[in-house]
Amino acid sequence: MKKPLPILAALPLIMAAAPAPEPPKTYPAPSEIVAAAPAVDWMAIAPADLMVMDLAADAKGKSRRVVIQLIPAPFSQGWVSNIRKLVAARWYDGVSINRVQDNYVVQWGDASETKALPEGLVGVAERSYTFSVIWRHTPDELVNERYELDPNVSYVKEGDEFAHFTGFTNGWPVAGIEHGRRSPSLLYERPLSLRKNRPVEAWPIHCYGMVGVGRGMSPDTGSGAELYTVIGHAPRHLDRNIALVGRVIEGIEHLSSLPRGTGELGFYESAGERVPILSVRMGNEVAGLPSYQYLSTESASFAAYADARANRRDPFFITPAGGADICNIPVPVRRAK
Amino acid sequence: MKKPLPILAALPLIMAAAPAPEPPKTYPAPSEIVAAAPAVDWMAIAPADLMVMDLAADAKGKSRRVVIQLIPAPFSQGWVSNIRKLVAARWYDGVSINRVQDNYVVQWGDASETKALPEGLVGVAERSYTFSVIWRHTPDELVNERYELDPNVSYVKEGDEFAHFTGFTNGWPVAGIEHGRRSPSLLYERPLSLRKNRPVEAWPIHCYGMVGVGRGMSPDTGSGAELYTVIGHAPRHLDRNIALVGRVIEGIEHLSSLPRGTGELGFYESAGERVPILSVRMGNEVAGLPSYQYLSTESASFAAYADARANRRDPFFITPAGGADICNIPVPVRRAK
Repeated sequence: MKKPLPILAALPLIMAAAPAPEPPKTYPAPSEIVAAAPAVDWMAIAPADLMVMDLAADAKGKSRRVVIQLIPAPFSQGWVSNIRKLVAARWYDGVSINRVQDNYVVQWGDASETKALPEGLVGVAERSYTFSVIWRHTPDELVNERYELDPNVSYVKEGDEFAHFTGFTNGWPVAGIEHGRRSPSLLYERPLSLRKNRPVEAWPIHCYGMVGVGRGMSPDTGSGAELYTVIGHAPRHLDRNIALVGRVIEGIEHLSSLPRGTGELGFYESAGERVPILSVRMGNEVAGLPSYQYLSTESASFAAYADARANRRDPFFITPAGGADICNIPVPVRRAK
Repeated sequence: MKKPLPILAALPLIMAAAPAPEPPKTYPAPSEIVAAAPAVDWMAIAPADLMVMDLAADAKGKSRRVVIQLIPAPFSQGWVSNIRKLVAARWYDGVSINRVQDNYVVQWGDASETKALPEGLVGVAERSYTFSVIWRHTPDELVNERYELDPNVSYVKEGDEFAHFTGFTNGWPVAGIEHGRRSPSLLYERPLSLRKNRPVEAWPIHCYGMVGVGRGMSPDTGSGAELYTVIGHAPRHLDRNIALVGRVIEGIEHLSSLPRGTGELGFYESAGERVPILSVRMGNEVAGLPSYQYLSTESASFAAYADARANRRDPFFITPAGGADICNIPVPVRRAK
């Protein structure tokens, strides 16, 4: 980990008058870029957009708190308002974690499937899994600049196996395709199929820690009473098939390290294995909750961080990958200093 | 989940003489394709290529066995022979799991860093992280056929953020780039940059459950005494930077559900948190070990499975993704029937 000596120090004095050679460029690790980001690049997360889930204490009596940030409009659709109603009705208090499937999801809700839902939950249509945005730039602008989609897809990288483009907007990972071009073979044309000022269809992405809405068979899209979070490799095949409503920003280890269920799909086979959820409250209802911030995905710090994630040149690394899939660029979140 | 009635049964008898309409096409889930694969598509895994790691029993006294399949040539390089020597010397017996970092890795080895290594371990050069193969097909053959690389990259899909191509060979996920074209901007040209009969540089991939060799700073490439497995989203930036030597084929939940370490990088901060490794044996040394098989990545069953992973059309799904990244196509492994 020792830094090499500055080149000048190793040169004979006789050469000191020559033009100074470039000092060796040092490359910070992604974590160092994040640590050095100026305060202005950190965006406050409103406590009212946090859901604080307290699980029963663990076997050693240690408390387990999971903090979830709810997704904003336009992604939030009707599901997030349902979740707010469920929290207000204290509906989640006393339900449990019922499913832990390795490399996939942890899921919670009412194991008895008999608990009455509060009045006023909205039904949401399947078309709400995606929304239409306008691409404002041509594909050849993709490589060296920053881009904007409407609304606010700010850091766009190339497409991948699942979409014609991926990017970040207001701190959230998003993918999209050009309307009417769903055929997988056409994905080979990405990103050339994107045209300026033509609408694209966009959706949030099932990265690690994202929180989604369990549902039954289509056309049911779920109420928000049954939720899950991703604890494995991003299950992107769920994108556009299930609603995403947030992400775990603290305490995911209390979910990801739970014993795996031995029933089908990782459901716990006995009631005793289920982990009780003591309470779920909105962040503004919880006294003493820390303030949280995310690194603005519209900031130069984030662009540098994303570049460093894709091109690790810090000392441990030999060969930078030259790229990163979007779920390998997790949006940094911290407790405010 | 109920299947619709066959259309004919619902028609009035008067129409029975008309040409029979096409029955509705049903699409099996990936798991159903795997379950229906003929016996000939299942390849035996030699017990001598298995490493059986028994952890100390858990808090409830339950035994914890992890079964690891070692990677074959040409990937195995010198590391796998080192690991065989370490097992033969019983070197791993009594070491421990020392690091559990959420969404990243579980790592094991000698926490004291004082245990003498056996004689005869080989040093391996960094160039052994990749190997050269010849691409035998032109890019326009990519979409609808099956392809072969030498040696034996059999199921090739499009490139991704990390490589000009990805594929499977003999049951293992592999990526590659054309020699001398590492610039990330050139990745936009994939897969067009691949030329028939031109050499490519290939390497195995850090998917969930893959096992790699911990190391110090370059040029150290590790002996094999310090190992880790992936328990989160595929950390592909480690490809070509650390050696991969196998994958967990059974019991990964005993690693992935361990409490996360609270020290830097997820290391356990106290000795009491470490999980003792009672013994590590090769599969042919373990009485009563089940026989394991993997689904041949050269089989039509695997091609159908991979296609179904990329295009989920089983009843739960509304919108098939149209693609899958290679780590979303885990190679099926089972106990032999």
